[in-house]
Amino acid sequence: WEGDFFPGITKIKYEGPTSKNHLAYKWYNAEEEILGKKMKDWLRFSIAFWHTFRGTGGDPFGAPTKMWPWEDGTNSLAMAKRRMRANFEFLDKLGVDRWCFHDRDIAPEGKTIEESNANLDEVVALAKELQGTRIRPLWGTAQLFFHPRYMHGAATSPELGVYAYSAAQVKKAIEVTHYLGGENYVFWGGREGYQSLLNTDMERELNHMARFFEAAVAYKKKIGFNGTLLIEPKPQEPTKHQYDWDAATSANFLRKYKLIGEFKLNIECNHATLSGHSCHHEIETARINGILGNIDANSGDPQVGWDTDQFMMDVGEATLVMLSVIKNGGLAPGGFNFDAKLRRESTDVEDIFIAHIAGMDTIARGLRNAAKLIEGGLLEELVRKRYESFDTELGAQIEAGKADLDLLEKKTIQWGEPKVGSAKQELAEMIFQSAI
Amino acid sequence: WEGDFFPGITKIKYEGPTSKNHLAYKWYNAEEEILGKKMKDWLRFSIAFWHTFRGTGGDPFGAPTKMWPWEDGTNSLAMAKRRMRANFEFLDKLGVDRWCFHDRDIAPEGKTIEESNANLDEVVALAKELQGTRIRPLWGTAQLFFHPRYMHGAATSPELGVYAYSAAQVKKAIEVTHYLGGENYVFWGGREGYQSLLNTDMERELNHMARFFEAAVAYKKKIGFNGTLLIEPKPQEPTKHQYDWDAATSANFLRKYKLIGEFKLNIECNHATLSGHSCHHEIETARINGILGNIDANSGDPQVGWDTDQFMMDVGEATLVMLSVIKNGGLAPGGFNFDAKLRRESTDVEDIFIAHIAGMDTIARGLRNAAKLIEGGLLEELVRKRYESFDTELGAQIEAGKADLDLLEKKTIQWGEPKVGSAKQELAEMIFQSAI
Amino acid sequence: WEGDFFPGITKIKYEGPTSKNHLAYKWYNAEEEILGKKMKDWLRFSIAFWHTFRGTGGDPFGAPTKMWPWEDGTNSLAMAKRRMRANFEFLDKLGVDRWCFHDRDIAPEGKTIEESNANLDEVVALAKELQGTRIRPLWGTAQLFFHPRYMHGAATSPELGVYAYSAAQVKKAIEVTHYLGGENYVFWGGREGYQSLLNTDMERELNHMARFFEAAVAYKKKIGFNGTLLIEPKPQEPTKHQYDWDAATSANFLRKYKLIGEFKLNIECNHATLSGHSCHHEIETARINGILGNIDANSGDPQVGWDTDQFMMDVGEATLVMLSVIKNGGLAPGGFNFDAKLRRESTDVEDIFIAHIAGMDTIARGLRNAAKLIEGGLLEELVRKRYESFDTELGAQIEAGKADLDLLEKKTIQWGEPKVGSAKQELAEMIFQSAI
Amino acid sequence: WEGDFFPGITKIKYEGPTSKNHLAYKWYNAEEEILGKKMKDWLRFSIAFWHTFRGTGGDPFGAPTKMWPWEDGTNSLAMAKRRMRANFEFLDKLGVDRWCFHDRDIAPEGKTIEESNANLDEVVALAKELQGTRIRPLWGTAQLFFHPRYMHGAATSPELGVYAYSAAQVKKAIEVTHYLGGENYVFWGGREGYQSLLNTDMERELNHMARFFEAAVAYKKKIGFNGTLLIEPKPQEPTKHQYDWDAATSANFLRKYKLIGEFKLNIECNHATLSGHSCHHEIETARINGILGNIDANSGDPQVGWDTDQFMMDVGEATLVMLSVIKNGGLAPGGFNFDAKLRRESTDVEDIFIAHIAGMDTIARGLRNAAKLIEGGLLEELVRKRYESFDTELGAQIEAGKADLDLLEKKTIQWGEPKVGSAKQELAEMIFQSAI
Repeated sequence: WEGDFFPGITKIKYEGPTSKNHLAYKWYNAEEEILGKKMKDWLRFSIAFWHTFRGTGGDPFGAPTKMWPWEDGTNSLAMAKRRMRANFEFLDKLGVDRWCFHDRDIAPEGKTIEESNANLDEVVALAKELQGTRIRPLWGTAQLFFHPRYMHGAATSPELGVYAYSAAQVKKAIEVTHYLGGENYVFWGGREGYQSLLNTDMERELNHMARFFEAAVAYKKKIGFNGTLLIEPKPQEPTKHQYDWDAATSANFLRKYKLIGEFKLNIECNHATLSGHSCHHEIETARINGILGNIDANSGDPQVGWDTDQFMMDVGEATLVMLSVIKNGGLAPGGFNFDAKLRRESTDVEDIFIAHIAGMDTIARGLRNAAKLIEGGLLEELVRKRYESFDTELGAQIEAGKADLDLLEKKTIQWGEPKVGSAKQELAEMIFQSAI
Repeated sequence: WEGDFFPGITKIKYEGPTSKNHLAYKWYNAEEEILGKKMKDWLRFSIAFWHTFRGTGGDPFGAPTKMWPWEDGTNSLAMAKRRMRANFEFLDKLGVDRWCFHDRDIAPEGKTIEESNANLDEVVALAKELQGTRIRPLWGTAQLFFHPRYMHGAATSPELGVYAYSAAQVKKAIEVTHYLGGENYVFWGGREGYQSLLNTDMERELNHMARFFEAAVAYKKKIGFNGTLLIEPKPQEPTKHQYDWDAATSANFLRKYKLIGEFKLNIECNHATLSGHSCHHEIETARINGILGNIDANSGDPQVGWDTDQFMMDVGEATLVMLSVIKNGGLAPGGFNFDAKLRRESTDVEDIFIAHIAGMDTIARGLRNAAKLIEGGLLEELVRKRYESFDTELGAQIEAGKADLDLLEKKTIQWGEPKVGSAKQELAEMIFQSAI
Repeated sequence: WEGDFFPGITKIKYEGPTSKNHLAYKWYNAEEEILGKKMKDWLRFSIAFWHTFRGTGGDPFGAPTKMWPWEDGTNSLAMAKRRMRANFEFLDKLGVDRWCFHDRDIAPEGKTIEESNANLDEVVALAKELQGTRIRPLWGTAQLFFHPRYMHGAATSPELGVYAYSAAQVKKAIEVTHYLGGENYVFWGGREGYQSLLNTDMERELNHMARFFEAAVAYKKKIGFNGTLLIEPKPQEPTKHQYDWDAATSANFLRKYKLIGEFKLNIECNHATLSGHSCHHEIETARINGILGNIDANSGDPQVGWDTDQFMMDVGEATLVMLSVIKNGGLAPGGFNFDAKLRRESTDVEDIFIAHIAGMDTIARGLRNAAKLIEGGLLEELVRKRYESFDTELGAQIEAGKADLDLLEKKTIQWGEPKVGSAKQELAEMIFQSAI
Repeated sequence: WEGDFFPGITKIKYEGPTSKNHLAYKWYNAEEEILGKKMKDWLRFSIAFWHTFRGTGGDPFGAPTKMWPWEDGTNSLAMAKRRMRANFEFLDKLGVDRWCFHDRDIAPEGKTIEESNANLDEVVALAKELQGTRIRPLWGTAQLFFHPRYMHGAATSPELGVYAYSAAQVKKAIEVTHYLGGENYVFWGGREGYQSLLNTDMERELNHMARFFEAAVAYKKKIGFNGTLLIEPKPQEPTKHQYDWDAATSANFLRKYKLIGEFKLNIECNHATLSGHSCHHEIETARINGILGNIDANSGDPQVGWDTDQFMMDVGEATLVMLSVIKNGGLAPGGFNFDAKLRRESTDVEDIFIAHIAGMDTIARGLRNAAKLIEGGLLEELVRKRYESFDTELGAQIEAGKADLDLLEKKTIQWGEPKVGSAKQELAEMIFQSAI
C-alpha cells in the first residue's frame, strides 16, 4: 500500500454552524475556550481502533459489508501494520490526539501466547513511532471475550487455565499501554457473568473476579504504571447477566472487595440505556460515588434491546452529559472515546469521517449548550431554591447526623402540616430546551 | 357487623394434589417435614393487610371495583377496627400466623400527627388482643408515599418539614411494630428517587436518606427493638428512578454509608423483574451479599412495564426461589409476605381465598421440587464439576489472593491452550425440569 | 366563583426565540406562514379537558396533589360548570381554538343514564355558549373505562348489559359532539382487551367490537354527523393487551371487518413508544395506510413502562413528527391534541400555562425545522437517489406487478452480482441535525 | 468420514417420566394417542438444519465455539454432503420425520447464481435419496439476509438488481422444496425493514414487497407446488424495524395487498416475546385470523432484548401453546420446527441430542397437560359462563349486526345498572396450574 489511505480527504477544519460542508466541523473548534478551558481539553476525544478499523459490518444474521481498500483479506502482521498507518492518518486528518485499542485488535493472535505477545510488540513499536509527541492512547485493554477459550468468562471462567491465560493477557496489555504512554486501562467483562444460574456458582465467580482485579492493581503498581484502572459497566450482551451491570452494581462490587480507591468507571451511554437508566443517570451515579473516569460516547436505539453503538447524534442528550462533565471538572485523565460504529449499511470510506465529525460536533454542541445553561444560571437557581429549607440551622444539624427521631418528632408536632412547593419540572424543561 | 366475615368458608385444609376443591391446599401441608424442617417454618407465610383489606381495585384509569360486604364506605376508626377483625378471621381460616401492615392502612390518618398516632394506638391495641399468642407481624412499616406531602419524597424530600414529618411517622411505626411483637421493620422508598434530574440534587438527597436511616437505627436500639430493618428495592414506579433500584444498588448505598451491618433486603419478585433481573437473580445477589432478609412473594406480567403484584402462579419460578431460600438456610426472622393483590376484575369474596391458596400452594410446590432437586444431587454435582479445576493447590492459592500476574503468566506459557468444557446448560435445564 | 380563574396571567403572546419570559411563545407564532400555510392551520392545537381540568395528580401510590383554587372538592353540576368557564378562559388566554373532552369529564355521572344525560346536556349547553363562533371541539368521546361496570371492557365486555350501556353512552356522546360542532369523534378502548387469555374468548370479543363500531357508523350517518371517527391505538395499560395495540393492528382489524373506509387513527406518541415503535413510525404507518387522522401530542419517558403523558419537549422528535404531517398535507379535520398532563409534583397554577406553552413551542419549532429540511431538499434528494434504480423501465414493470420470477431470474443471470451503495445513514442524521 | 457421526448414541426411545436417562424421551411417545390422534401427528416435529448443523456458536462478540468432529473447516460441496448425511443420521436417531432448511445452509454459495444453483442441485439430489420414503421437508426457504448484497433488504432493497437477485433465489428455493416433497415454503424477511426512517421510503418498499409476494404466488401455482406459503413475523433484529413485525401487522399487510388467502403465518415464540406479546397471544391472533400455519418452537430469555432461540423448556408455556394448537385442529400441513440452537457454551456432541430431547419432551408434556385441561372441562366451562349473557336472543341479534344504538339505548334505560360478575382469573390460573 502506497500513499494516502484517505486520498480525497484533507484535514477537517472548523467552519462554523452555517457551513454545508459535510467534511467540516460546525460546532467543534478545538482551540476555542468555553468556561475557561479549550474545547479539546474538555472533550479529550479518542478514536476506537476496533470499531473504526476492525469493524466489518458483520452481524448475527449477516456477513461483513465493509470493503475498505487497504484491507487485503488477511489477518497478517503486515496487514496489522498497514491498518495502524491508516489509523494515524485518520487521527491526523480528524485532528484528534487520542486512541483506544484492545490487544487483539491491533495485532493478530498467534498460536501461542508468546507468539501473540511478539506480534503485539511489533505492532506496538510501530504505533509508538507513529504516535510522535502529540498522540497517546486514552486507554488500552485486553480482549478477553472473542476467543472461544473465554466462552465461560475470563477472570470468572470455571476453568483455572482460562483464569491464568487472561491474567497473562492483561499483564501484557497493561505493559504495552504503559509503554505507549496510555493514560488509563479498561476492563470490560463481556463474558464475566452468566447465561443461566442453574449451572453457575455466582459467589465463587465474583470472588475470582475480585482476586483478578487485586492482582492487576498490584502489577500496575509494580511496573510504575500510573494510569487509572477503569471498569466499564454493561448489563448484558453477550451474557444474559454481566457482573458489572451498571454503575451502582460496579460500585457495590468495588466496595465489597475494598477496591473502591483503585478503580473508576468508564460509562458508556448505550450500556446505560440497556440497563434501564438514562446515560445522564449513570454518569451522575458514577460522579457522586467519586468514580467517574471516562465516557464511551455513543448512543443506542431506544426501541431495540441490544447494543447498537451508534454515534451520539442527539444534542439534548449531549447537553445533559456535558452538564455532568462540567460539574465533575472535566474527565482528565479520562476523555470521550468514540465507542461507536458505522451502521452496517454505511460502506463508503467517507462515511467514517462523516460519522465521527457528526458525533464530535454533537458533543461539542452539548458543551456549548451546557455552558450557556450554567452561565444563565436559571436551572441552578431553580434547584438551589428547592432545597433551601435545608440551608438552615436545623438543616445543617440533620446533614451532620445530629437530628434524632425524638427531635424530629418534636418539630413535626410543633410545626403541623408542612408546606410543599411545586417541583417546577416543566419550567426546568423549558429552561433546558431554550439552551439547545 | 355481627358474626363471620366469611360465613361460607371454613378452615382451609390440606387435601393433597388430587383434590379438586378450590378451597383446599393441594401442596401446602403446614406440619409436614421437608429437608428436616416443617413446611410452615420454611415458608413463614404472611398476609399483606393493604392489598387484602385496603385494595379497592382502583387503577389509574378506573374507579374501585371491590364491594366487600363489611365495608361501609367510610375511613372511620370504627371501620378500621371492623377490618382488623376481618383480617384475623382470614388469617385464622387460612391457617397463617403472620401479617404485615403500613401504619396508615390499619388506622385512618388524622388532622394532626397526634391524632393519627392516637388512631393508630387504638387499632393496634385491638390487633394486639386479636393476635393472641400465635399470630405476630412479620413486619410493619410506615406509609411514606400516599399523602401529597410526600410527593417529592419523604427522607429525600427537598422540604425539611417533610423529612421531619416522615421521621416522626417512622418513629411511631417502629414503636407499634415492636409493641405487636413484629420480627422485622421495612422501608420501601416509593417516593425516594427522582422524576427528572434537571430539578434534583441527587447527591444531597442520598445523603439525607443515609442520615434518616442512621437515625432509625439509633432509635430502634434505644427502644430495644431487635427486629431486622429491611430495605425493599424497586427500580421505579411511582418515581422514574427509585434510589433503592435493585439489590446491588441498595447494597452499594448501605456500604457507602456504613449501614451494611444494620439492614437486610426485602426482595420482591415483581420489583426484580421490573429492574431487568430475574427474581432468582435478585435473591441470589442479596444472599451472597449476606443481606437476604425477606421475600415479597408475587409475580409480574412479563409483557407489561409496571408492578402488577400478581400472586405467584409459576411453579418453575417458585422452585428457583426455594432453591435459594434453602441455600440461605431459610429466611427467619424473615418470611414470605404475599405482596400480591387480586386482579381488579376479581370481585367475589371467595376470590381472596382462592388467590392466597393458589399462591401458597405454588410456593409450597416450589419447596417440594427444590427438595427433590437437592436430594437428587444431579444439579449440584453438575455445578461442582464445572469448577473442579479450582479445587486444586493453585486454585486455593488464587482464591487466597496469592497468585500474582507473573506466576499466572508463567503457568500459561507452560500449559499452552487451556481445555474448556461444555457448560451443559440444556442438561441442567432438563434436570431442573424433571423435578417440576 | 367571581372573576378570573387565572388572574395574574394575561394573553400569551409570541415574543420570539430570544425572550426569557416563561409566559410567552418563543416559536409558535399563530399567524405566521410556513410552507404556504399559517402555523395555526398546520398545528390546529387542542386542549385536553381531562388532563388539564380533571387531572388530580393522584397515582396508583398516591393521593391527589392539585389544589386548584376554583375546585370546591365536589363533583357537582355547579362545579362542572365552573370548571367549564375556567377551560374557556384558559383557551382564550392561550390563544387556542380547539378542545377535546370525554362525556364524564365535563359532567357528573348520575344515578341513571337518563340523569347522566341530563347533566351532560346542561354542561354542554353552557359550553356551546362559551365556545362562541371561534372555538370548537377537535373531538369528543365517551369515557368507557372508569366506571366499574366497564372493568371487563365496554364493547368487549362479556356482559351483554354492559355492551348495551356503552352503546347508549356512545350514542349520546356522538350527539353532543355533533351539537358542539366537533370535527372528530374518538374511540379509545382502554378496557377493550384482556388481562389473561385463560378466561377470555378473544375472537368473540373482537366480533362484538366490530359490531359495535358498525352500529356507531350507522348512527353517525343517521344523524348527519360528518366528523371523522378515530380509533386511538394503545398497546396496554390498563389492560395487559388492548385490541387496538398499534397502528398496524388497528388497520388489520378495520380491514378484516370492512371498516377501513369509515375510521382513521388518532396516533399518540406515548402509546407509540409503549408499543415498541417510535412515534414517527406509527404516524408513518397510519399515513401510508391512508388513515392518519389526528395526533395526541405527548411524550413518554424512554426508561419507564407506562403511559407518563408528558408534554412533548424534544425538538428532534417534534421535527420528525412534523415531517410526516407535512407529507400528509396537514391533519385537518384532525389536529394536535395535548393529551399530556402536568407532572404530579407540579402544583402551581402557572405550571399549567408553562407546560402548554413549552409543548406548543416544541411542536412549532418542529414545524420550522421540518420546513427548513424540506426547503433545503438534501434529505429528500438523498432518499430519491437511493431508489433511482427503480425509476427505470424495468422498475416500472416491477412496480406494476408485471415482472415474474422467470424474467427476474433471466436478468439476474445476465447482470451478475449487483452493486449495492452505502445507505448514508450518518449523513442523513447529520443533515437532519443541522436543521434543529 | 467413515461410519457413524454419532457413534455413541443409539435410537432415542420413550422410557416414561421416571427415567433418569438423559438420552431417552420421558414424555414424547410418538405412537401414543392423545385426544384421538397420535402424538407425532399432533406435533409433526422438524429439525432446523441451520441451527443444528450450521450453528457455529459465534456471536457479535465472539468466535465460533463448536468443533463438531465431522467438520473440516471448509465450506466445500463435499463438506455440504457430509453434513447432510449427519443430518439424516440425526433425524433417524431422534425418530423425527421432518426437516427445514435455507438454500444456502445446505449448499455453498457459488461465484455466480448459476454456480450456486448447481451446488444446490447436487446437495438436494443427495438429500432426496437420503430422505427415503418417510422423511420430508416441513419447509424450505431462501436465505435472503446473510450475503452483503442483502444489507438493505431483498424484496425491499432500494437496488433493483437485488430485488431481481432475490427473486431468482426464491424461484430456485421453491423449486427444490417442491422437488423434495416439502409441505410449506417460508419467507422470513430479516432485512425487509428499516434501520432509519430518515433514509427510507417505507411505502415504496412495502409496495415492492407485495409485488414480490405476488410473483412468488404466481410461480408456485405455475409449477404446481401445493405447499403453503408462510410469512414468519419478527419485530426487529437485525433491522431496527421489520415489516412483518407481528401476526397482526403481517395480517394487515396481507389484507391490504389482497394476499390474505395465499399466505399463512409461521409463529415463532421468541419473535412473539420480542414484539411485546406472549407466544400464546401471537398464536391465537394468527388462529382467529385464519392464518395459523406453523410454529417455530423455541423460547427467549424474558430479561434480554434479542433473539436467543433457546429450546422451549417451560412446561406452562408449552401447555398454552398446545391449547391453541388443539383448538386449531392441529397444524398440518404445518408442524413444530425447532428453530432453536444450543447455547454457545454447550459444545459436546451429546448436547445436540439433550437439547432436542428436552425440547420435544416439553412440548409433548404441554400436549398431555392441554388434553387433561380439555378433558377436565373446567376452564372451558368458566369461559362459557362468562359470556352466557350473549347466548340469548338479544345476544344473537347483536352478533348478527342487527342491534342499533337506538335499540341498545332503549334496553339500557329499561334495565338500569348492569350486574357485572367476577372475572375469576385466579381460579382460572389455579385450574390451569393443576394440570401442569
